[in-house]
Amino acid sequence: MPIRVVGFDGDDTLWHSESHFEVTQTAFRDLIRRHVPDADADTRLAEMEMKNLSVYGYGVKSFTLSMLETAIELTEGRIPASDLEVILNWGKKMLLEPTELLDGVESTLRELSQSYDLLLITKGDLFDQESKLARSGLGDLFLGVEIVSEKNVDSYRGIFTRRGIDAEQFVMVGNSLRSDVLPVLELGARAVHIPYHVTWHHEHVPEESMPASGWHRLSSISELEPLLSRLDES
Amino acid sequence: MPIRVVGFDGDDTLWHSESHFEVTQTAFRDLIRRHVPDADADTRLAEMEMKNLSVYGYGVKSFTLSMLETAIELTEGRIPASDLEVILNWGKKMLLEPTELLDGVESTLRELSQSYDLLLITKGDLFDQESKLARSGLGDLFLGVEIVSEKNVDSYRGIFTRRGIDAEQFVMVGNSLRSDVLPVLELGARAVHIPYHVTWHHEHVPEESMPASGWHRLSSISELEPLLSRLDES
Repeated sequence: MPIRVVGFDGDDTLWHSESHFEVTQTAFRDLIRRHVPDADADTRLAEMEMKNLSVYGYGVKSFTLSMLETAIELTEGRIPASDLEVILNWGKKMLLEPTELLDGVESTLRELSQSYDLLLITKGDLFDQESKLARSGLGDLFLGVEIVSEKNVDSYRGIFTRRGIDAEQFVMVGNSLRSDVLPVLELGARAVHIPYHVTWHHEHVPEESMPASGWHRLSSISELEPLLSRLDES
Repeated sequence: MPIRVVGFDGDDTLWHSESHFEVTQTAFRDLIRRHVPDADADTRLAEMEMKNLSVYGYGVKSFTLSMLETAIELTEGRIPASDLEVILNWGKKMLLEPTELLDGVESTLRELSQSYDLLLITKGDLFDQESKLARSGLGDLFLGVEIVSEKNVDSYRGIFTRRGIDAEQFVMVGNSLRSDVLPVLELGARAVHIPYHVTWHHEHVPEESMPASGWHRLSSISELEPLLSRLDES
């Protein structure tokens, strides 16, 4: 069946995100080490994020709250409030950062929007994601925007039902095997994996557990249009 | 035109919310006064929330981050990290609190769901709102759920378009004149205002600026079914 709808992940597929988290996390590590020289700030922060995921969900505000809690815990309450204020300000800075598009995104979306319905399907904080999309200037190229709290089989199924999409007409494009590829394949749709140079540990899926077919891997979004044309011809 | 779709606000219309914020805010005031006896914690927190609204959006995580920032500022950085940890824990407690329905909500929704399509239209943090709805046990009574970052004419218009709703067939029910009544009237739909005993200052609208018709005020959701029946007959 010909492709009718192409879904795009936002963070690290259309615009840089994880690299901003990494920059902040490096600064966090340095700040903690000034108080506790042998602290393993990265491991503790990762554990805290996982522990808090079911209470806070994804996003920069959740990340900021987890950094604060980790800092207090690792310093056993000795960290001065002024340093915690520094962490609060990192969070704000991340939220206000300009949306920095990946190479080739704008031209690819413009071209594909001529032939397909484009959907932005992204998870995380509603307010933050809407604000990033608004600042990206790409809003008009999408027929619709779906911001979900978790990308799984149920949430994709809900989108297909609400929008009357036949799974066979749908291709999802994203950087996460766990969120953008696996659940979509399970519903009988196709997927394109475009890895980003950093993957959040939480999104990692061992390669050998991936289905053999139904998905493709590209090294850049610029290769997407030729791939979709090929799929449409076959 | 007969009513086909009834939209419901969530916070302080179906379940208690603002009263949980008030409890936390009282504790916050007491905590700050232990460090700065003459501090006007309420005013400063309200100002901080407004200042941060365009960066953080609505919700408990935003409120928690604003409490932390206010505490550091009012104590000029002298507040110990252990007290800031107390504030972090208040935020988590609020997020984990059971969803406490207002009187008459469940029976009213059950009855109305026999005659109308019910939509939950709520603003705030996506993850928190979904989690509250899940814990409310009301999920199955709604045909759909719309969580928006701001309730204004544009967001209601978007919902009408996406769901093929004619404004004249739609009635919105909620506790906020600003978010649940005014934008809906502007689109030619009707609204029912059910005030909650506390209104967040940000939602306040002077009574004299309200349109003369198109909306009704009830003192309890239990009066809703008779009102809708009357509207449907006239």
